[in-house]
Amino acid sequence: MEIITSNKNKKVKNLISLIKKRKNRDDLGVYIVEGPKMFSEAHFSEIIEIYFSKSFYESEFENDTDLENSLKQRNIDTQIVEILSDEVFKNVSGTDTPQGVLAVLRQKEYELEDLLKDNNPLILILENLQDPGNMGTMLRTGEAAGISGMLISKNSVDIYNPKTIRSTMGSIFRVPFVYSKDILRDVNILKDKGINIYCAHLKAENFYDEKDYKKPTAFVIGNESKGISDKLSNEINNYIKIPMSGKVESLNAAQAAGILMYEAKRQRR
Amino acid sequence: MEIITSNKNKKVKNLISLIKKRKNRDDLGVYIVEGPKMFSEAHFSEIIEIYFSKSFYESEFENDTDLENSLKQRNIDTQIVEILSDEVFKNVSGTDTPQGVLAVLRQKEYELEDLLKDNNPLILILENLQDPGNMGTMLRTGEAAGISGMLISKNSVDIYNPKTIRSTMGSIFRVPFVYSKDILRDVNILKDKGINIYCAHLKAENFYDEKDYKKPTAFVIGNESKGISDKLSNEINNYIKIPMSGKVESLNAAQAAGILMYEAKRQRR
Repeated sequence: MEIITSNKNKKVKNLISLIKKRKNRDDLGVYIVEGPKMFSEAHFSEIIEIYFSKSFYESEFENDTDLENSLKQRNIDTQIVEILSDEVFKNVSGTDTPQGVLAVLRQKEYELEDLLKDNNPLILILENLQDPGNMGTMLRTGEAAGISGMLISKNSVDIYNPKTIRSTMGSIFRVPFVYSKDILRDVNILKDKGINIYCAHLKAENFYDEKDYKKPTAFVIGNESKGISDKLSNEINNYIKIPMSGKVESLNAAQAAGILMYEAKRQRR
Repeated sequence: MEIITSNKNKKVKNLISLIKKRKNRDDLGVYIVEGPKMFSEAHFSEIIEIYFSKSFYESEFENDTDLENSLKQRNIDTQIVEILSDEVFKNVSGTDTPQGVLAVLRQKEYELEDLLKDNNPLILILENLQDPGNMGTMLRTGEAAGISGMLISKNSVDIYNPKTIRSTMGSIFRVPFVYSKDILRDVNILKDKGINIYCAHLKAENFYDEKDYKKPTAFVIGNESKGISDKLSNEINNYIKIPMSGKVESLNAAQAAGILMYEAKRQRR
């Protein structure tokens, strides 16, 4: 196959623009995954383009026919594959140690109903979350804790941010998530469906492990520095507290989420 | 006060070298904290130098006398203060949004005994941990969970890495930690002192919440990608498992640590 050696190549420039800007991703309804592990877990029907670095291509495949056969097994057409020189690939990849494969995938399309398919939902609600690594970690821990999905306020960071995608370690493919245009409305919909909604709050009288999460449950995690907005916490009648020793004022958002989700998992086991 | 406006200033170059390189920090036995919150929590006896950005200085103090009085209240000598132009300060600070104050502090000096002062120790042991943010988050959650301190294998990331310091959110000032030259030896010392040492392991038969952490306890957290070494896990007879749903192969190291430390805190409450 031909090798792209110029950073000015149209496809290369487009790829970089998709990695850098949320707007560019959203306009095309796509996102990027990097690395052999993520690539191997992607479903063929969502893969739009594939980029290999020259050295990755050469180490993985004997020749073009070998590549073709390997992709055919996954129902992937060779037409969507491009090889980049190692230099160009490194320039495209946002990481210090590029892993040799990038794929452009179609964005997921979930509805609020997708979070409610489980008999006994366990939902994580994120309000105005800003750290991409935190969000990805929550999705990864969330899958491990058995959540039904994540409901995310629209002013939160982009789940398709490359840092978020990386820190999901593949959970992005498996855990449903919905960006809510109106988080107050959607939280009330969940309440009407019989889901008990909890948030960590200074007014809380009960410790987080004193509530019954064997029933349908959702936890709200707020912004990293401001916490949950008054507007949203006023809609929630179940306040809980995570006890803290020392002079710690709050936990990291992903830590709080992990501790709450695993308390639910512990109770449900 | 005079304002430093050149990036070539000797103190500025020295400061940058301390932020960038572990070796430079260790050679002088110092580290850097950034931001008013961290600065306000530092003890005067450990502060070696203070750098304000011009705009921070002007917004916080009316004049040099005001600065002098404010520092005097904390027993800090004005002689160790320098003002940097905003441009130079931004260049020095590793962050996108510099917070206007940097301080050079003396490194902490703890011994293994400092981790054993509590009547009922709860210790976090880190083997070959590589992510600075993970380490800082663990110290922060650790303080909240009431740990006695952290024992860190010498091949782990530097706790004085600016990213680690930032993510401790001040816990660096309050939680003892020791870099171990020989982690196997030190783990055996802890065992001899009657501390039950646990690690998450594939061979585990018990869930993490089925053990009694009301007794003296230590948790071992391994490298982010490789986990705990065979050498170390062979020394530990208490294996535990954190159950995981879905296709998750492992939790993020800081998430695992947070869940374990808070299970101990839950039992000890």
